[in-house]
Formats: sequence, C-alpha cells, structure tokens
Amino acid sequence: MDYGKFFSADVPSFLRSPVREIFRKVDLQAICSFAGGYPAAVTFPLAEIPSLTARVLEKYGTKALQYGATQGVPELRQAIADRYGVPVSQVQITTSSQQGIDVCSRVFLNPGDVVLAHNPVYLGALQSFRAYRAEVVDIPLPLCGGAQTPEGMSLTSPPKFIYVIPDFNNPSGETMSLEERKALVRLAREMDVLIVEDSPYRELRYSGEQLPTIRELAPERTLHLGSFSKIFAPGFRLGWIIGPEELLEQIYVCKQCLDLCPPVLDQYLALEFLTSGALDRNLVKTIAEYRRRRDLMVGLLQKYMPAGVTWTYPEGGLFLWLTLPEGMDTVALYDEALARGVAYVAGSFFYTDGSHRNTMRLNFSFIEESKMEPGIQLLSSLISAGRLSN
Amino acid sequence: MDYGKFFSADVPSFLRSPVREIFRKVDLQAICSFAGGYPAAVTFPLAEIPSLTARVLEKYGTKALQYGATQGVPELRQAIADRYGVPVSQVQITTSSQQGIDVCSRVFLNPGDVVLAHNPVYLGALQSFRAYRAEVVDIPLPLCGGAQTPEGMSLTSPPKFIYVIPDFNNPSGETMSLEERKALVRLAREMDVLIVEDSPYRELRYSGEQLPTIRELAPERTLHLGSFSKIFAPGFRLGWIIGPEELLEQIYVCKQCLDLCPPVLDQYLALEFLTSGALDRNLVKTIAEYRRRRDLMVGLLQKYMPAGVTWTYPEGGLFLWLTLPEGMDTVALYDEALARGVAYVAGSFFYTDGSHRNTMRLNFSFIEESKMEPGIQLLSSLISAGRLSN
Repeated sequence: MDYGKFFSADVPSFLRSPVREIFRKVDLQAICSFAGGYPAAVTFPLAEIPSLTARVLEKYGTKALQYGATQGVPELRQAIADRYGVPVSQVQITTSSQQGIDVCSRVFLNPGDVVLAHNPVYLGALQSFRAYRAEVVDIPLPLCGGAQTPEGMSLTSPPKFIYVIPDFNNPSGETMSLEERKALVRLAREMDVLIVEDSPYRELRYSGEQLPTIRELAPERTLHLGSFSKIFAPGFRLGWIIGPEELLEQIYVCKQCLDLCPPVLDQYLALEFLTSGALDRNLVKTIAEYRRRRDLMVGLLQKYMPAGVTWTYPEGGLFLWLTLPEGMDTVALYDEALARGVAYVAGSFFYTDGSHRNTMRLNFSFIEESKMEPGIQLLSSLISAGRLSN
Repeated sequence: MDYGKFFSADVPSFLRSPVREIFRKVDLQAICSFAGGYPAAVTFPLAEIPSLTARVLEKYGTKALQYGATQGVPELRQAIADRYGVPVSQVQITTSSQQGIDVCSRVFLNPGDVVLAHNPVYLGALQSFRAYRAEVVDIPLPLCGGAQTPEGMSLTSPPKFIYVIPDFNNPSGETMSLEERKALVRLAREMDVLIVEDSPYRELRYSGEQLPTIRELAPERTLHLGSFSKIFAPGFRLGWIIGPEELLEQIYVCKQCLDLCPPVLDQYLALEFLTSGALDRNLVKTIAEYRRRRDLMVGLLQKYMPAGVTWTYPEGGLFLWLTLPEGMDTVALYDEALARGVAYVAGSFFYTDGSHRNTMRLNFSFIEESKMEPGIQLLSSLISAGRLSN
C-alpha cells in the first residue's frame, strides 16, 4: 500500500533528530558518549521518590490520578509564580519544555513565516520550526555593535519571534551578556516581534554572575520557557511557560487539543519536591557535581587536544562546543568515531545552513566520569591523526 | 500591546472545549455533574501506587527518571504488543490518546483537507481537526444499507481519513455492529483512505458481545488509538497507537518535536501495573462498578423522564445520549440548569454543523452515586416544565 499521498505537505519538512537517531541504535551506556543532553542520573532524587509519592497521595488522594486542568495543577502554577515573582495568571504548565517550543510554533507560525535565531540553534527548536515550514533566519550576535538593524537583515516577511537560549546555550554553552540581552530586547521592540526565551538550564550556573532573563527585560513580549528536566528529572516531562496572559490564553486553548493536560501525578510530585525545599537542596548538589564535571572536561581538553582546537568555557548548563581546524569534518567521520567507542553530535546539525562542519557539541553531564578521559583521548587522537578531516 | 498580528492563521479555528471551560469555572464535585468524561476515582488503584512505585524504582532505578525513547519505553511497547497480538514495531506510546489524535492530524492534515466522521463526534477530535483547518464531513451510519458510496458524498477534496470511535462512542454511547464495521472498511478501501480508530473505552464493556476492532478488519490502513486513562488512571497521560510501520515512522519523527518522549516513570508504572496482572484484576472491578452505574442511570431515566425523551443504552464506556422533544434547546438553558446545580454537555457541540440542539450527553462514571437521583430528577423537572425549550 502506498501511504505517500496521505501525508501532510509539512511531512517532508520533518527533521529527524540525529541525537535521537543515535539513541535508537546505540547503547550510550556502553560507550564514551558526549552526545545527548541527558542529566547525570546521580542528580535525580531517586531515594526520595517513594516518600514524595506517599506524601502526595496522602495530601491529594485520587485527585493526583484524575484528569487535571489544562493550564496545569493550580498549586504548581502558584508555586512557579511565587518562585519567579509573577502572577499565577501568567503561568502555563507544559508537558515538557519541548512542548513549550512546539506550542509556540503552533500558535504563531504558518508556512513561510520567519523565526530569528542565533546560530548554532537547539535542534529540537529547529525541528519544530521547520515542521511548520517556517524559515529560520540567523541573527548575528553580538547585537550591541549597532550594525544589527532590521534593515540589515534580508527578510522575506516580518519575523514572528526571536528564539534564544540566553543562559548556557544548547549547543554552544555560551551565555549572552547583559548588553547583548538589552540589545536583543531593543531589536525586538524596534521590529515589534515576540521573543521565545528557552531557559531549561538557567538554574545550573557554575560560575559568573546571574543576569536578568529576557522576560524580566521585556515582559510584554517574551514567552519564557522553563523546565523541570534539569532541576528534578526529565522522566517527568514537565515544563512551564511564563508570558503575557493574552498569549497564554491561545496557548491554553491549543493545549486542549495537544494532550488535554500535563501529567497530573508528576505535577504533584514536582510541587511537593519544590515546596518542601528538597528541590533547592538537591540543586546545590547538582550544581557542585556539574561544576566539577565541567572543570574536569575542560582540564582534559587542555591536556589532550592538539593545537588549533578551541572550545567554549560554559558558565553553566550541560554542553561545550569544540571547533576543529578549518577543513575538518565532524559529520563525515562520525561513524568511525562511533566504531571506536566515542559519540558526539556534529555541530553542523545546529546550523540553519548546515555549515560549520568542523565543530561538535560535547555534553559533560551524562558520561560516566571514568569514561571522560579515555573518551577525550580517543577524540583527540582521531583529530590529531586527521581522521576527522575530509 | 496588540498581539493579534502574531497569531498563526490557524488560531481563529481553535475551538474551546465547552467541557474544559465548565471545569475552569465550576467545582464539579459540588454539583450534580453529568458533564465531563472523568472516570470514577474509586476505579483508580490508589492504594497500589506506592508499592508499584517502589517496585519500578527497584527494577529500573534512575532509568525510570531519565529521558526515554521517543517511541516509548521498549518494555511497555512489548507489553502492549503482546496484549493486542501485534509486532512491537507497530506500537508507538503516546502522551495521552488525545496526543494520538493530534499527531495523526499533524502528520496527515493540511488546511482544506477532509476528515470523514459520523456525527455526533468526540469534541477533542473535532478541536484537533479544526485547529488544522480541516473540513470534517459527516459520514452517515448505517453504512451497510448500500446507499453510502463515495459518490454519495459531496467532497471538496479526497478525504485523508475516517475518524471513528466504534466501541461506546463518545458522546453517543453507541457501538457499531459488525456489519457497520465491515461496511466502513469496505468504504475506506473503495475510497482508499486511512481510518483513525479511537478506542479509549473498548475494554469497558458491560453487556453484549466484543466485536473485532476496525484495525483487525483493515490492519493495512488503520491507526488504532488506545488509552490507559480508563484502565489505569488519566493522570498518567498515556496512550498508544497501533498501526502500519510506515505511518508510525512519520508519527515517531513528529513526536520528537512534540515532547521528545512520553512520561517515563508513568510508563514504567503502567508496565508494572499491566504485566503484574493488577490491571486485569482492577478492570474486573471497574467494569462491575460502571455496569451498576449504567443500570442505575438508565433506571432513573425510565423512572423520571417525561414522555418524548429518549436515550441510548450503552453496552460500555462512560456516556449515554439523551434526545429531548424537537424544539427544546439544551444550549440556551444550560446556565439555568447549572444555577440549579446540574451540569451536562449540550449535544450540538458534538455536531459538525452545531445542529441537534435538543440533545445532551450524560456521563455516568464520575458523578457521586448519591447525586445521580437528585440530578436526574432536576433535569427531568426542567425538561417537563419546558424550561429547556427556546
């Protein structure tokens, strides 16, 4: 039977995540994997889940197993509102912050619409924008040089929103300075576009100074996407959107179609974890763990990488970004690296034009610590031997 | 700030669920509510959740809290495959069966595409199809009279799929006969369209004989949507799709954008509940409970409803369908009913053309049993007094 004719005209624009494709084929536990963006399992409050569950069921009973409100469990919305200092009417709970991205795409984008984003861009966002056949246009940073104006960009139509991860960008690990944030907001106001501020890593800062969110600088036009994946556990698939009520109202209606409501027991577990203070206690340990891993990773890069290889120094988050000498190709020889037992994600997947084939994203949160050194040694030897060149 | 210009051209087609709007404003526990499609809380395995959680965490450890495969946890996919006698490659786990409907809409529908569905139609499906600006065309039943042919329908474009709930339809409570199922399959084959078989209630049969699913009759073109909401608990937001691998492959890629993966701990809880035999034991009790409630409800209708009011006798599921004498209007006087403490869903919301304003959907699973009789009495007196007429 030929199924081709049934598919939507959007389907040819669906991008497969190379990361998820790797997961499908390879047991990442068995190799040195710098691919993926998995948190360290040691940061999960595994031992606390049974008592958390018991407390939730005692407090909320069958309410925790029943359908819930589309906007999210009221108590969790309130807890998020309190934590971030916003009215509860500006909080929508989502079934993962990926759903936050997708619901923004669904509510704002039509084929041909323009999204502005700074390369390299989070793959899950690119997948979502492209699946709606939007055009993703690179917006160069720094924006504060004065060169960046609406007139400077050749756009086929007025952009709907700017998409950005200001804190510890996935994939680059970079953080926008206060000036860059202000310049971005100025640009958004000048062009009169919305901003989707994707912020799954913000609470994972290991050094440097916390900067205001884009939402704090431009609350009237920013949808701020938060996530429990890195401060609780990703298996719960919970995130939130903070934004203007008029925008959340349409997102709420859209979410009715998507899945009626976020997972309810999971929301109560997150609520209990957050309001009991366990989240913040766990976060202190998580940050210490990741800071150590980041420093270990950077130390290993310094120790083993040949001259001509550079990397970002992330102040937080889960990733750093490696740039090899020009002409090297991290896509072409990925299979050989994998065959030798090391996985990464080629950087060009994160570029809207597929360029920058000499870059790669390295994750330092998931890999077993004992595998970090052999993994980096292996990568370095492949690079040194020019095996990663075309 | 004027946000109107940012919205997608689809947004004006977003339908609010009147059911979810009721939930937003009214505490259903405080009144006699025949609205909603909530399962009875007494059917949830509340007491078993702590031990289920402990067993899952012991068996799977942090894997149960980590990101999971987009297709769903392999063990749960296998358990579903075993239960329904299909290869595991034909099983995709979804974050609720509502997501199953939405992902089918997303993968198959473009604006102007046609979906065939038999009126009255599940509201969540109507919402999803319309949000993609598809045209939903009524397909009359019975189909076995011979009158129903592709030529008999005036269609603007070839339909993409037929949407149907063959077992205990939401909202009508009706079940398709074997002949109707076969006729539907004949029609689908003749027109060469897919079938989306929405089947959240199938395991809740209280009388009559189990009939083959549409998928069993036409596996080559059917996407069968299942749900844990009525056989475990809806708070977990878990469902599944069984269908041809070529179709599931695109649904899998699409689901990467939607939420990366279904909730992981919830999947392991469902797996443990299913494979331990607890699900089937609980189902026996659930069926007995709902059978009693259905019979009670039908008895009350017989006792109190004035002449000229008719209703369906559901062999399973959660709903029955009331038809008042012509000229009566269940939409117009909903607010008065609510003010007197009784809630229902007006039947015309489930009609693609908004007709049948003299009908209503009554749910018998959620309302406290002690409120059933006063609720039906109240409804009957409103109808008798002609208060539900224009």
